[in-house]
Amino acid sequence: MYEFADYKERLLTEQIEDQILDYIAKEKIEPGKKLPNEFVLAEKFGVGRSTLREAVKLLVARGVLEVRHGSGTYVASPIPLDDDPLHLRGIDDKISLAMDLVDVRLILEPEIAALAALNATEEDIEKLIRLCNIVEEKMIRDEPYIKEDIEFHSYVARCSKNLVMEQLIPIIDTAVLLFVNVTHKTLKTETIKTHRAITHAIQNRDSIGAKTAMLMHIIYNRDKIKEIKDMSNLRT
Amino acid sequence: MYEFADYKERLLTEQIEDQILDYIAKEKIEPGKKLPNEFVLAEKFGVGRSTLREAVKLLVARGVLEVRHGSGTYVASPIPLDDDPLHLRGIDDKISLAMDLVDVRLILEPEIAALAALNATEEDIEKLIRLCNIVEEKMIRDEPYIKEDIEFHSYVARCSKNLVMEQLIPIIDTAVLLFVNVTHKTLKTETIKTHRAITHAIQNRDSIGAKTAMLMHIIYNRDKIKEIKDMSNLRT
Repeated sequence: MYEFADYKERLLTEQIEDQILDYIAKEKIEPGKKLPNEFVLAEKFGVGRSTLREAVKLLVARGVLEVRHGSGTYVASPIPLDDDPLHLRGIDDKISLAMDLVDVRLILEPEIAALAALNATEEDIEKLIRLCNIVEEKMIRDEPYIKEDIEFHSYVARCSKNLVMEQLIPIIDTAVLLFVNVTHKTLKTETIKTHRAITHAIQNRDSIGAKTAMLMHIIYNRDKIKEIKDMSNLRT
Repeated sequence: MYEFADYKERLLTEQIEDQILDYIAKEKIEPGKKLPNEFVLAEKFGVGRSTLREAVKLLVARGVLEVRHGSGTYVASPIPLDDDPLHLRGIDDKISLAMDLVDVRLILEPEIAALAALNATEEDIEKLIRLCNIVEEKMIRDEPYIKEDIEFHSYVARCSKNLVMEQLIPIIDTAVLLFVNVTHKTLKTETIKTHRAITHAIQNRDSIGAKTAMLMHIIYNRDKIKEIKDMSNLRT
């Protein structure tokens, strides 16, 4: 008979990996911010420095951490690049998956934007304006902007001050990037306009305005996906 | 410099573990249903039988699979017991977490119930009625019913035919069980009544009825959590 104890035999390194991920989530360490040094972390997690270094190495490989030599270890992304907690990787019908993802976003994100307008701190709003500007500049300069786009939406979720939303939105929006990035490089004008409207409404504490701007943003995306779906149905 | 390739060196067993989880999700193998035998699976995943057996062993330890000797390997739960994809384990303020979880459910689940009323098959509806009855019987007999309760809500999500919802709801509802199960064994009358109303409305293809019944169900839970929160604030 197999017992739960078997699971405990998993490599210690992986447990430390998970603990670092939990620590980043709990302490809300944002991308670009520095982790405490390895002495501090090794002591915190009760492991040797070599184990800690192994775990950091794996998290670097997974896109979560970044080691800047002579400076320290920084958070690159709170979500591992290979992470697929919703087990969507195996789904073959990518257009239906794109539709299902946008439908989930359509339900969640307008409500989140409404909460963000109520709960964001002044500091949050400054950061959100910065993120909105970065996405906009990248779009205008025709540079890749998806990572920054996810960061913007994740930050709106963070402004909601709902701990579950904060974790959920990066997962859903990263799934869009990983599996069904069909609307990329289209909808530029619409994205710039609606991102600005979302940011502006949150800044003005206009809860309904933030909700409707987010609705509009996601509806543009849904319409585009529907168009692609209809075209692919015509072809078959 | 560390590369993505490092990650690939993770134990093969774990990759097979993930592949089995993906397979269960993709093939929609429900709790209580049998997996193909190990010859079939080993060939499918291109590994030896001993590796496959190791992966199964780990998934048994994690509560996903169940080996019935002389009969085969069955799915026990689609979500590993130790799974914490939202990294909520570390959050100390359990009452705030309970509130945030119920607020997410309040946004998502009524919409899911509305979709379920539109999209459930006749077979789905039969299964949903069975699950509704099981929870009810267990509540009346004062037996543990949380696992079955999660199964009921997960099945409503499955009836929605949105692939992302199907994956998302078990994660959120299992988090309630794992971390903040504060309303357990209260709200029995309300739960029986609203579960029945949800099932009945889905059966009658009454989309708005399903939505409002689910809203009411979750509002009862939210009110209870708010009560507990207010009491705990009074004490401090």
